[in-house]
Amino acid sequence: MNSQHQNIAVLQSGGCTPVINESLWAVVSASRTNFPTSDVYGVLRGVEGLISGNVSRLTNVSEESWQRVRHTPGSALGSTRKKLSDADMDQLFATIEMLKVGYLFLIGGNDTADTTEKISRAGKISGIPLNVIHIPKTIDNDLVETDHSPGYGSAARFIALATMGSGQDALSMGNASPITVIEVMGRDAGWLAMASGLGKRSDQDPPHFIGIPEVPIDQASFIDVMSYAYRQFGYAVAVISENCRGPKGVLGPNVEPLLVDEFGHGYYESPAKYLSKLLSESLNIRVRYEYPGTIQRTFIENISTTDRNEAQMVGISASKAALEGRTDCMVTLLRDPEAPYRCKTGLVSVDLVANRVATVPVQYRIPDTNLPTKSFNKYAAPLIGDSLPDFFRF
Amino acid sequence: MNSQHQNIAVLQSGGCTPVINESLWAVVSASRTNFPTSDVYGVLRGVEGLISGNVSRLTNVSEESWQRVRHTPGSALGSTRKKLSDADMDQLFATIEMLKVGYLFLIGGNDTADTTEKISRAGKISGIPLNVIHIPKTIDNDLVETDHSPGYGSAARFIALATMGSGQDALSMGNASPITVIEVMGRDAGWLAMASGLGKRSDQDPPHFIGIPEVPIDQASFIDVMSYAYRQFGYAVAVISENCRGPKGVLGPNVEPLLVDEFGHGYYESPAKYLSKLLSESLNIRVRYEYPGTIQRTFIENISTTDRNEAQMVGISASKAALEGRTDCMVTLLRDPEAPYRCKTGLVSVDLVANRVATVPVQYRIPDTNLPTKSFNKYAAPLIGDSLPDFFRF
Repeated sequence: MNSQHQNIAVLQSGGCTPVINESLWAVVSASRTNFPTSDVYGVLRGVEGLISGNVSRLTNVSEESWQRVRHTPGSALGSTRKKLSDADMDQLFATIEMLKVGYLFLIGGNDTADTTEKISRAGKISGIPLNVIHIPKTIDNDLVETDHSPGYGSAARFIALATMGSGQDALSMGNASPITVIEVMGRDAGWLAMASGLGKRSDQDPPHFIGIPEVPIDQASFIDVMSYAYRQFGYAVAVISENCRGPKGVLGPNVEPLLVDEFGHGYYESPAKYLSKLLSESLNIRVRYEYPGTIQRTFIENISTTDRNEAQMVGISASKAALEGRTDCMVTLLRDPEAPYRCKTGLVSVDLVANRVATVPVQYRIPDTNLPTKSFNKYAAPLIGDSLPDFFRF
Repeated sequence: MNSQHQNIAVLQSGGCTPVINESLWAVVSASRTNFPTSDVYGVLRGVEGLISGNVSRLTNVSEESWQRVRHTPGSALGSTRKKLSDADMDQLFATIEMLKVGYLFLIGGNDTADTTEKISRAGKISGIPLNVIHIPKTIDNDLVETDHSPGYGSAARFIALATMGSGQDALSMGNASPITVIEVMGRDAGWLAMASGLGKRSDQDPPHFIGIPEVPIDQASFIDVMSYAYRQFGYAVAVISENCRGPKGVLGPNVEPLLVDEFGHGYYESPAKYLSKLLSESLNIRVRYEYPGTIQRTFIENISTTDRNEAQMVGISASKAALEGRTDCMVTLLRDPEAPYRCKTGLVSVDLVANRVATVPVQYRIPDTNLPTKSFNKYAAPLIGDSLPDFFRF
């Protein structure tokens, strides 16, 4: 390590989680102890800030401000969906040189693993001494090589409670609005949609159908499952992942995406809206459509305590890994195979993570409905923190 | 009072609130003390249950079950949107006679005031001794003659936090998705939409525009306000009430409602969806649309403590009013004009409430944007319970 490059920079990237700022606080706090003579910079708007030199010196931020940051949703440094190109590298390394950064932490998801790898490779080629460490975060839980990802537990808790509540509402309202379709996030994997089943204790409880990106939805079968639940229980709830596919691509009126971002991810007209209309016409009853959108990843009064702890753990571990001279790696969560639930952190080479997606395995879901199996509940229940309420009605 | 008619019946009606079951528990608990020799019946599905004789005897429900009921969203007895007709009265009174009901409590909103009045009038004409008391509940806060209504404070808290969180997300994501339009409930009045401004401490904070049913939205002015905020702050958030009108009726692609219920209330394609599309096309950027739907009235981990207390108070007061022989009235909340915030309960004749709507007064909103004034904050802040978080970002 070139002693001229001893400063620290941290950035946040991609979609927000409600605990992404806990990881930020943790990595900065730990680094102030681990690297007592270094300056710490927050890079604003992810790699955009590295390219433009837009940074904020965090070394003297007050403890009171940090306590507020920890409980602020969204990315306190600002985020980006920019895909790093080779042409950006010169400017990016100019910022690194200018700030004498020797340790770069990137808090993000799959796309960030790709970015981490690119920066690390370019640094090696240019001979610039730089340790690059990826701190995982995603509400989608689709990072590979880790038991789960910080951010998922809190969003999963929101979806579980939202489904329980919406189900009680539909059940209460009876024929005035007996069916609800909820659309949740999860671009390539159904982990969040699956979490909607964590409060389900009996066949009657919601949800009655889960749509996940892993399994194309057969419309006739969807209508069958939902109308059966409606006839049986007087109401029905379906939870559908964004971008759910039918036999011909993403479900909906249009086969083409409305928008494609720099990473090539398409954004479509809502498949849940499409399915709710289909169901309403087929059964000739009112079908509610609910779309919590970013509320599911920013609702700060509903955080999983496990998730908050682990978001902190991965930040602390990243700083420790930097101190040990590790680079080009991502912090992982490793679950103790013995009960009770416990996790420790590990490290994995970031090239094993970049551009890969962890999907929901077959043994976690029941065929036809995709309702969670007991194995899924065992996996996910500890991640959402306190146990879910147990409702009672007459 | 005919001594043969000493039993008690309670029903729930209309849209659910997260504390409607607190009022149910309170009126039943208080009545078991006030009327120790009476039976208490829960009427299932509102007046539908009175007509069909579908009731559940609540006298021996365990305390443990009641504790779960109190923390269950939706209506524990089931609700209805049925409008009572003259033809229903014979069957309805047959149930009342059969159960020897002398005291009927109806937990509900404006439509329930209408139902209360009709039952009371029919009872008097038939010479059946019946005290009929309306316990207020509505997340819309549109009941007249009361300072505010139980149910509003909790839903308002949800909307305030959802807006703060969504705003942080839009601000974090920058140009990847800088504008958010949130559609909230509030059929005829903008109280809930106004609550989205309770966490706004500066011009930069969300929301930047509020659409309320009281004021038709001028589309050009809406685009102006939102694009100004976007240019100024790098992001913008609008909160739009369902059924917001434009110059020609409810905003959207269709002038006609998708559905009209028995009370003549129309349900329209989303005006917020329409406005988000308009804004996206006009500014040529991604505009998010969020629609929390029934989640805003069922999210049980986000209850206002004030709201829960007051939902309990109105239930207890209703039972006391019955003991005093009062009938044909609604319990109200009367705010102490002196600080600190305090409410006591009162009683008002139900014919002053039925078929009337409390709208948001002019002095509570700023022209053009409908953002809340200090007077509105003073009115609404105590109702949402604990103070809202104060975020910090770099």
